[in-house]
Amino acid sequence: MTQTLSAYMKEIASLVEERIACYLECSDPDISSTYEAMLYSAMAGGKRIRPFLCVAVCDMLGGQRDVALTFGAALEMIHTYSLIHDDLPAMDNDDLRRGKPTCHKIFGEAGAILAGDGLLTEAFGLVATAKTDPSVTVEAVRRLSRAAGAYGMIGGQAMDIRAEHEPLQNIETLEKLCHKKTGELISVAGQLGCLAAGFTEGDTLYAISRYTEKIGIVFQMIDDYLDVYAGEEALGKPIGSDAANGKTTFMTFMTSSELLEKAAALTREACDAISDLKGNEMLIALAETLLHRGN
Amino acid sequence: MTQTLSAYMKEIASLVEERIACYLECSDPDISSTYEAMLYSAMAGGKRIRPFLCVAVCDMLGGQRDVALTFGAALEMIHTYSLIHDDLPAMDNDDLRRGKPTCHKIFGEAGAILAGDGLLTEAFGLVATAKTDPSVTVEAVRRLSRAAGAYGMIGGQAMDIRAEHEPLQNIETLEKLCHKKTGELISVAGQLGCLAAGFTEGDTLYAISRYTEKIGIVFQMIDDYLDVYAGEEALGKPIGSDAANGKTTFMTFMTSSELLEKAAALTREACDAISDLKGNEMLIALAETLLHRGN
Repeated sequence: MTQTLSAYMKEIASLVEERIACYLECSDPDISSTYEAMLYSAMAGGKRIRPFLCVAVCDMLGGQRDVALTFGAALEMIHTYSLIHDDLPAMDNDDLRRGKPTCHKIFGEAGAILAGDGLLTEAFGLVATAKTDPSVTVEAVRRLSRAAGAYGMIGGQAMDIRAEHEPLQNIETLEKLCHKKTGELISVAGQLGCLAAGFTEGDTLYAISRYTEKIGIVFQMIDDYLDVYAGEEALGKPIGSDAANGKTTFMTFMTSSELLEKAAALTREACDAISDLKGNEMLIALAETLLHRGN
Repeated sequence: MTQTLSAYMKEIASLVEERIACYLECSDPDISSTYEAMLYSAMAGGKRIRPFLCVAVCDMLGGQRDVALTFGAALEMIHTYSLIHDDLPAMDNDDLRRGKPTCHKIFGEAGAILAGDGLLTEAFGLVATAKTDPSVTVEAVRRLSRAAGAYGMIGGQAMDIRAEHEPLQNIETLEKLCHKKTGELISVAGQLGCLAAGFTEGDTLYAISRYTEKIGIVFQMIDDYLDVYAGEEALGKPIGSDAANGKTTFMTFMTSSELLEKAAALTREACDAISDLKGNEMLIALAETLLHRGN
């Protein structure tokens, strides 16, 4: 490796942020408030895992990075919209996100609803600007809508909200919830990286899908673990908020050592899935970093 | 005309509803609540003006109706999502829509936010299934995102919310607000009808755009007029709600006879714009019906 994972992630995050900022420019004062709110949340930091996966997969497969950056920026805009809406008083009612006041705390509830709607709508418009074969773009729109829609991310959030009143009965239902709420969008990030590199089907797409599905679950498991064990400063939000909200998490069904063991096994499976792909070093390093992260 | 406008509108509305219902089928009880909420609002009736424009324009130009129906269903899903979010307590706080309880009254605020998010996300996925040249689909996604996004419909809603605290100073600002909030999506409906028929640029697309832009303003003007003069039963919501909410409308700046006169003039201009297009009878009839409607 000529570059560390951390430097590579920073490079991609910075390019993706530039693309988002560029796409969301607005010089009309009559409508600029929604743009401000969108940019406030989109530029609030975060790990940028989804665009990273998209661009890193495309890089590994020798594709056009410009297309992957466009898809990656759209993925991050959709992720950001989901955070804004999840934080609303009617949903999780969170005041802090990534250590900063949540969107509705600054722009009001109506402003935050519109900012989320705007990011979601503009994300699809951004995908449509990709400089690639139109059939690739159409496939990207189709997969993105499926992963982010009522079957995927929104379905997961609906399950999550219901779980506040009707606790989940078993770990299988929790895994399904997590796969929908977090895993689908992480998984489609890898798929869009394949599409950007011209791999629209076949073994490579399948291998990447298996890799991203597994690290998606690990990501959520470690989130649940950190909610109990991390420091508030590291997390950027109050610790123990899941338990305080009566949420069912992986920590409900497992001891912390069982959780870490299962997360390690899934990480190995994820790395095995892409072991035959040339240039997989960064993706392997990412999987291990996600397992061992402290925030 | 072998068919009346009313029968033609009913035929298209029924086909569009069928397409939406078909696309939003869900057999998984874990996630079906969001689908129920989406369908509750999408199937609550309404004039289906946007899909009608899309399909009628495509029919007039001799295009493939199947593609126009797909685009039309997506347009109606986006329109429905905007109504669900606009009705939320944090926005207009409306209890009734089309004579029925609003989405959040039945499914709760969180359920309604997710239903809106779902309809918006699925609309783009539906567009991506259109059986047409992928470059046409990409152009449809691009235009739809622009019209519905922060520059268009969402920008209009943001202006509308701000106008509750800072009354609009002149009719030009109100026209801009209405063009964004209502006109952009009505206008793009006609454009998508052109795209579905293979007209991706040129005089025809321009003529249709001028027609839809003008009837979009008329639509809003008559809405404002009816809020003062229609019966509650005809409107399906309380009359005088604009004034009660302190909203600036066309009735703020004009007398009712000035409003009707201007709406009639715009209707004439809309019809003139498409006077050279063969088979324009239904679109002409629609413009006149929108001007004279009682609900």
